[in-house]
Amino acid sequence: MTEENIITTAEGAGGERMDSLIKNYILKHLYTEDDSEIGLKDLDDSAVINDIVFSTDSHTVDPLFFPGGDIGKLAVCGTINDISVLGAKPIALSSAFIIEEGFGKDDFDRILRSMREVSIKSKVPIVTGDTKVVERGGIKGMIINTSGIGIRTGNLDKNLEEAKRYREVKSRWLTDSNLAPGDAIILSGKIAEHGISLLSFREGYGFESEIKSDVAPLNGLIDEILREGGVVSAKDPTRGGLANALNELSEKSKVMIEIWEDKIPISNAVRSACEMLGLDPLEIGNEGKVIVGVVKEKAEDVLNAMKKHPLGRDAEIIGEVKEGKGVFMETIVGGRRYIPKPIGDPIPRIC
Amino acid sequence: MTEENIITTAEGAGGERMDSLIKNYILKHLYTEDDSEIGLKDLDDSAVINDIVFSTDSHTVDPLFFPGGDIGKLAVCGTINDISVLGAKPIALSSAFIIEEGFGKDDFDRILRSMREVSIKSKVPIVTGDTKVVERGGIKGMIINTSGIGIRTGNLDKNLEEAKRYREVKSRWLTDSNLAPGDAIILSGKIAEHGISLLSFREGYGFESEIKSDVAPLNGLIDEILREGGVVSAKDPTRGGLANALNELSEKSKVMIEIWEDKIPISNAVRSACEMLGLDPLEIGNEGKVIVGVVKEKAEDVLNAMKKHPLGRDAEIIGEVKEGKGVFMETIVGGRRYIPKPIGDPIPRIC
Repeated sequence: MTEENIITTAEGAGGERMDSLIKNYILKHLYTEDDSEIGLKDLDDSAVINDIVFSTDSHTVDPLFFPGGDIGKLAVCGTINDISVLGAKPIALSSAFIIEEGFGKDDFDRILRSMREVSIKSKVPIVTGDTKVVERGGIKGMIINTSGIGIRTGNLDKNLEEAKRYREVKSRWLTDSNLAPGDAIILSGKIAEHGISLLSFREGYGFESEIKSDVAPLNGLIDEILREGGVVSAKDPTRGGLANALNELSEKSKVMIEIWEDKIPISNAVRSACEMLGLDPLEIGNEGKVIVGVVKEKAEDVLNAMKKHPLGRDAEIIGEVKEGKGVFMETIVGGRRYIPKPIGDPIPRIC
Repeated sequence: MTEENIITTAEGAGGERMDSLIKNYILKHLYTEDDSEIGLKDLDDSAVINDIVFSTDSHTVDPLFFPGGDIGKLAVCGTINDISVLGAKPIALSSAFIIEEGFGKDDFDRILRSMREVSIKSKVPIVTGDTKVVERGGIKGMIINTSGIGIRTGNLDKNLEEAKRYREVKSRWLTDSNLAPGDAIILSGKIAEHGISLLSFREGYGFESEIKSDVAPLNGLIDEILREGGVVSAKDPTRGGLANALNELSEKSKVMIEIWEDKIPISNAVRSACEMLGLDPLEIGNEGKVIVGVVKEKAEDVLNAMKKHPLGRDAEIIGEVKEGKGVFMETIVGGRRYIPKPIGDPIPRIC
């Protein structure tokens, strides 16, 4: 078989090559005319049908345990976050384990405890599951698929009513397509910690003593800012980092997004690590951060609400939405840099 | 590590050893007090929370293509069926692919077409998904996780009202714990076709020219019998076959189930194959059959409604529910055989 006829790891790594696999195969065949309000063709973080928000994600992180978390915490947080960024309240998760034969029960125990802890802390129960054991090789210990459901809340309704005092809003969920020129872009905290921590730990670079994964459930933080009102769009910058998430927002909302380098929260340790490794922190995945689009009149209020939450302490208004297309960054030295969608994933298997 | 400290394929194969892994690890850690009406601790086919039915299943079938179907059809049907057997109407599915590096795009195309076909036929759209690619080995091509959501319908309410004309009914869903002495047990068609077809094809035994997998979506059939009314319990006898499903019903309803061997639908080809291979057809998995418990006064009506549906043509009343515990079979030669819960799975990786 030729390279064109087989699926490669690059096609599973986020970015352009994965987009092409999704559009030419998955969407082409699996999309059908249906009653969903947000469905397969929207490629948003979750689907919405019958006012139920529904999401799925498989986690193939390697190694399974890393500074700041493990695959279990990652799986629970990942699906909670995908539901929360539409503005919904996650009410239940499923957990489907694919386990490699020979996997240690002590490690399984540790992963399950970690899932329990974050489920209790975030108040999202795991209500159903499945377990399969497969032969050795390939999966590297364990893959966890978590799916989840969420419901619409009065807070989301009130939040959007507040936004509508200032401008029209297309979707009644916080979709990728809801941005309009004038909106402020807020980022909830420091970038690139999950990806750099995981890479450093895996390869033994030694940065992990300073840099831990930011993996965390965002439902509490998002609920807080909805109470403030005026939020129109939310997205968690996971695989492909800020660069990927902002490009998706820009494409789907048909707007230009301009960000300001000096406003982007980043720790000195992450900045140094990225410089040494030749990686762009904008392209590195996060697991406990959210980008929100807010009508400009409410931007300061939402920022302040965010800063009061432990997961939003370092939040900043990092940019604004303009007419046009693409993502651009005003650099610290005064230049203007085009931020493309990453082609592949600079760090594979981080989520 | 000792055998006790690692997870083996036997623990992923259904039956007693898997029960122990689920109870001592998964339930122990992941169960939390929550608002679910049917939740993790019930170990039913699906969970119910906020009147939303929610289910997940990962499919690790080997080979991916088999007589009568493929992994795609199996994944879509499996989750539709898990939701339908609670009496709910499945309204949407997710589809998460784990793909082995090097997987052929033509095969992927074929699997996706098959998913599309059954999604359209059963009127259950796939609304969200995820794709990951992993290194070679272990997963044997592809694993598909499908999760799904379903809603309560007026037909289910009316069906249970009808049942309540004759006796009290514990759950307002068709749960495993809803049987009571006197109920009739109906099976929708011939057993063991999926497992035998798959095994024969995989091992080259040659039976697969006569025996095809029965994989099919059961939502239409179940909706038909709910219109008739009086159904209290439904379960699809997948992994572990009829023996496993009946034992779960018996345990959870705290009743004895007596079945009659001469009434159990089975083809001559499957019977011969099982005899030659030394397999018990009661322990072999099905993917398009349902066992229903019906109040006895409605048993004939439900049977007739079932027989009118293409997937219920060969349905029979195969037994009845009595006071006591365990599953017993009156054999054709007039004996009485105890039917235990299978220890493991006689045929691995069939679903």
